[in-house]
Amino acid sequence: MEELIATLHRLGEDPGVRAIVIDSAGPAFSAGHDLGEMIGRDPGFYQELFDVCTVMMETIHGLRQPVIAKVHGIATAAGCQLVAACDLAVAAEGTRFATPGVKIGLFCSTPMVPVSRAVGRKRALELLLTGEPIDAQTALEWGLINRVVPAEQLDEAVAELVAAIARSSADTISIGKRAFYEQIDLDEGGAYDLTKGVMASNSQTVDAQEGMSAFLEKRPPTWSSG
Amino acid sequence: MEELIATLHRLGEDPGVRAIVIDSAGPAFSAGHDLGEMIGRDPGFYQELFDVCTVMMETIHGLRQPVIAKVHGIATAAGCQLVAACDLAVAAEGTRFATPGVKIGLFCSTPMVPVSRAVGRKRALELLLTGEPIDAQTALEWGLINRVVPAEQLDEAVAELVAAIARSSADTISIGKRAFYEQIDLDEGGAYDLTKGVMASNSQTVDAQEGMSAFLEKRPPTWSSG
Amino acid sequence: MEELIATLHRLGEDPGVRAIVIDSAGPAFSAGHDLGEMIGRDPGFYQELFDVCTVMMETIHGLRQPVIAKVHGIATAAGCQLVAACDLAVAAEGTRFATPGVKIGLFCSTPMVPVSRAVGRKRALELLLTGEPIDAQTALEWGLINRVVPAEQLDEAVAELVAAIARSSADTISIGKRAFYEQIDLDEGGAYDLTKGVMASNSQTVDAQEGMSAFLEKRPPTWSSG
Repeated sequence: MEELIATLHRLGEDPGVRAIVIDSAGPAFSAGHDLGEMIGRDPGFYQELFDVCTVMMETIHGLRQPVIAKVHGIATAAGCQLVAACDLAVAAEGTRFATPGVKIGLFCSTPMVPVSRAVGRKRALELLLTGEPIDAQTALEWGLINRVVPAEQLDEAVAELVAAIARSSADTISIGKRAFYEQIDLDEGGAYDLTKGVMASNSQTVDAQEGMSAFLEKRPPTWSSG
Repeated sequence: MEELIATLHRLGEDPGVRAIVIDSAGPAFSAGHDLGEMIGRDPGFYQELFDVCTVMMETIHGLRQPVIAKVHGIATAAGCQLVAACDLAVAAEGTRFATPGVKIGLFCSTPMVPVSRAVGRKRALELLLTGEPIDAQTALEWGLINRVVPAEQLDEAVAELVAAIARSSADTISIGKRAFYEQIDLDEGGAYDLTKGVMASNSQTVDAQEGMSAFLEKRPPTWSSG
Repeated sequence: MEELIATLHRLGEDPGVRAIVIDSAGPAFSAGHDLGEMIGRDPGFYQELFDVCTVMMETIHGLRQPVIAKVHGIATAAGCQLVAACDLAVAAEGTRFATPGVKIGLFCSTPMVPVSRAVGRKRALELLLTGEPIDAQTALEWGLINRVVPAEQLDEAVAELVAAIARSSADTISIGKRAFYEQIDLDEGGAYDLTKGVMASNSQTVDAQEGMSAFLEKRPPTWSSG
C-alpha cells in the first residue's frame, strides 16, 4: 500500500499524466489484505495497517487526475473498497465483487465506507452481512462500476474513458474532481455555496474562455494545460 | 433565469395552482447557459450568473407545489441540473442528458450538486468527467427521471402525475414537500426528530382528520385546500 | 408497536438469537397505523404515536442482530417504512409497496426518512407525492428490498439469508452492524476515522484471529460467539 501511495503521488504531480489506471498483474484485481501478515500482531500493527489503507483510498480522491479501476477476476474486501474508491471503474465479464470479511471474523468496516456510498444501504448490508459475491452485471446495475465488457475488450474500454478525459483541459478536470469530493458530503445548500464560487472562478480561467470561444466558433479548443 | 424565478414565485403563491410543469418552447428542453454571453466578462458577472442560477434551482425546492420537468430533445449542463432539481421529471424517448461543461473548459460544478444526489457517485463522475450523454432509458434506470414515454404521450404522462397530485390536499402536499427537503440532508436521527413532529402536527389538520374519516367511511374526501 | 419494541429488545438480548425476521400473520405485511384510532384525539396522542413509531424503527438499527423483513401482500405507509428500516428485506412476488398518506391528508413524513435513504430522491418523491404503489420487482430495482421470490419460496429465501448470517460470528456481525449505522450518515472522512478504529479493534478479537487462521489453514472456523 505504501508503494501504491507513493506511485499515486508521483503520477499525480506529473503534469503529463492525464488519468491513472489501477490494474493488477495477476489473475485477480485484488483480494484485499494478506491475512498471513495479520495473525497475532501487536495492537499498533493493526492500527497502522488500517491507517495506511485509509490514506491509500483517500489519496485517490485527492489526486488532480481521475483514477480508473481496471478490474478482472475478483475484487474483494479492501480490493472491492479500492474499486469503490476509484473515480471510475471498468470490469471484465466474470469479475466477482464481495466484502467477505464477515466470514473470517473481520467485518469489512472500512470497505463499507465507499461501498455503501456507491450502492446504497440495503445492497451494502446484503454484501456486508452475507459476505456473498455479486457478479459484474449486478455491480453495474448497483452503481459500483461504470462498464462491463468482455475480457478481451477491457483494454479498449478503459482506453476510451482515458481518451475522453484526455480531450479536456487538465486544469478543468482537476477543478471539477476537487469540487466533486468537496461537495458530495455537504448538505445541498452548502454544496451550492461551494460550487457556485467554483464555477464563477472556473469561468474566468484561460481554458474556460478558450473552450467557450472555440465552441462558439465551431473549432477545436487549444488547452493551456493537459 | 430571473423571469423563471419570478414566474415560479407568482405561481407558487397562487392557491389555485396545484403543480407546476417546466416545459420548453423549442426543440430542446434546455442546453444550459448561453455561452455567447459568457466570454470576457468581469468577475462580478460570473458570480452573479451562478448566484442567480442557484437561486432558481433552490426556488423549485422552496415552492409549496410539486414542480415537474417535462423534458424532450436535450437537457444538458444547467438544463440537466434543472431536471435533477425538479421534484419529478418525465422525458420523451430520444431525450439525451449530459453535463458536458468539461469539454469547453467549464466543469459542470453546480449541475453536479443535484445530479450527483440523484444518480450516485460513480455515475455522476462518469457524466461529469467524460461529458458524454446518456439516453432517457439510462436516465430512468439511474433515477434522474421518473418516466420515459413516446414523444406523443408526453402530455398525457405529465397530466397523469399532475392529476395524481391534484387529487390530494394542497396543504398536505405542501407539508410533505417541505419536510422532504428539510430532512433529506440530515442524519437519520435528526430526520426522525423533525418528521415525527411534522406528522403529529399534520395529523391534527382539518384535511388529515377529513381524509382519515373519509377513508374509514369509504367515501371521497372533501379537502379544505386545493 | 410497544409489543414489537419489547419483543425486539428481548430477542436482541438473547445470545442464541442470530437474526430476527419480521413477518405478519395476516394477508398483508402491514398497512401502517390503524386510522380508526387516529380521529379526534388530543395533541399528545399524536406526538406519542409518532414518537413510539420512531423508537420502533430506531430499535431495529440498534439491535446486535440483523433484522429481516419477510414481506407479502402490501407494505404501505408505516408498513413500507418498516421494510425500509429493516437491515434486509425479502418479498413475495405480487407484494405492493406505497407511501399513500398523501391521499388521506396525512403525508408519509416519517416513512420518507428510511424510504428516501433507500431509493433516492426522485423515486421517493414519486412514491410520496402520488401515493401510488410500486410492485415488488420495482422495489427490488430501486434498492428498497433485497430479493423477490414466488410466494411459495419466501420461507426458503429468508432461511438462506438467515443461514448465511448464522455461519458467521455473532460478535463480528454485531461489530459490523453497529459500525454500518454509525458511519452511514457521517462525511467520508469521518466515516473512515470511525471505521479504521473499528477494524483495528475487530482484528484483535478472538473470532477474527480464529477466522483468519482457519482461512489460512483451509479449515472451518470455530467461533467464540454465535
